[in-house]
Amino acid sequence: MLKLYFAPGTCALASHIALAESGADYTVERIDFKTNQQQSPEYLAINPKGRVPALVTDRGVLTENPAMLAYIAQTFPKAKLAPLDDPYAFAEVQSINSYLSSTVHVAHSHKGRGYRWATEESSFADMKKTLPKSMGAVFGLLEQKMLKGPWMMGETYTICDPYLFTLTGWLEGDGVDIATLPKVADHFKRMKDRPAVQKALAEEKV
Amino acid sequence: MLKLYFAPGTCALASHIALAESGADYTVERIDFKTNQQQSPEYLAINPKGRVPALVTDRGVLTENPAMLAYIAQTFPKAKLAPLDDPYAFAEVQSINSYLSSTVHVAHSHKGRGYRWATEESSFADMKKTLPKSMGAVFGLLEQKMLKGPWMMGETYTICDPYLFTLTGWLEGDGVDIATLPKVADHFKRMKDRPAVQKALAEEKV
Repeated sequence: MLKLYFAPGTCALASHIALAESGADYTVERIDFKTNQQQSPEYLAINPKGRVPALVTDRGVLTENPAMLAYIAQTFPKAKLAPLDDPYAFAEVQSINSYLSSTVHVAHSHKGRGYRWATEESSFADMKKTLPKSMGAVFGLLEQKMLKGPWMMGETYTICDPYLFTLTGWLEGDGVDIATLPKVADHFKRMKDRPAVQKALAEEKV
Repeated sequence: MLKLYFAPGTCALASHIALAESGADYTVERIDFKTNQQQSPEYLAINPKGRVPALVTDRGVLTENPAMLAYIAQTFPKAKLAPLDDPYAFAEVQSINSYLSSTVHVAHSHKGRGYRWATEESSFADMKKTLPKSMGAVFGLLEQKMLKGPWMMGETYTICDPYLFTLTGWLEGDGVDIATLPKVADHFKRMKDRPAVQKALAEEKV
């Protein structure tokens, strides 16, 4: 049995949806960011990074969405969530997930986590002010050059799709009008219709 | 034949070393950052992100170190650069590479790429001032919780090692004293002795 630590509104939703798609037996446990539970000694013993998601397996704890998503795809091959037998196609999937993690999520993090890289209130205000432009730019590249449609990689649904969906959900709060990104908007709407997405979202509301 | 686009002093060195370790036939082509060649129409046609590394294969172009490193390991399995037949162990490797990409490299990027997330000169100065603390923190976690030694994952050399080596090489310029990170320092020294590392470094000097 797998156990996913998550917090609502975070990138943990990506791996949560993938678990729901995979057919895995899993449970979820909510970490309360309002009381800073992610920095509690109990949670730091699970994930020393003090972040979500974290996936408890019978071998140990995994962190970082791109690694967890590939793990879910490889461990539940019947769900066909990645081109597991084709190293080049698998690398294309991983390249997207790496971009979503290290470029798209990172752009968003400057909204409220500027203290990771700066100390002055004026810098945090500047980052917040710049957010619509920076998030717009990284999503613009997705829209124009990367999103094949109808799914991220084309005709076949993969572990890229829950990750893109999760980050797309942040656009409105980040000041980016999704109507300016028609392919991304279409993808977001299509994702909402999937039972696994509805299941994961419902599990995060409990 | 694979072809790697790189620029000296960048994270492209990670995939470059992995290629040298893998036994692959490859060539390298230098992109001149001083003349902003990475933003030239010719290079943007290869990699629309305008960054390095990019790996040209007979199937197409791959970008993002974590994806490229896994691709090299999977395509040249005899080099044993990752635990390819064990999804959990492979995910552990990928989790490290994801952390190196989205947390460690990103911390470093605030030294000279602050314009990605802010607009004011005062913010850029604040980021530069904060760099020794932020890079020290993300490397502190590697030193204390993640680097098993002698290699990143323990007794076996993997695709994590060239990536860690590459980012460790930035510490001095980022104002972090490597002597405060003895396991990282030991890893850096051990990497320098590897023929593949020396080969890649020599190829970047031409």
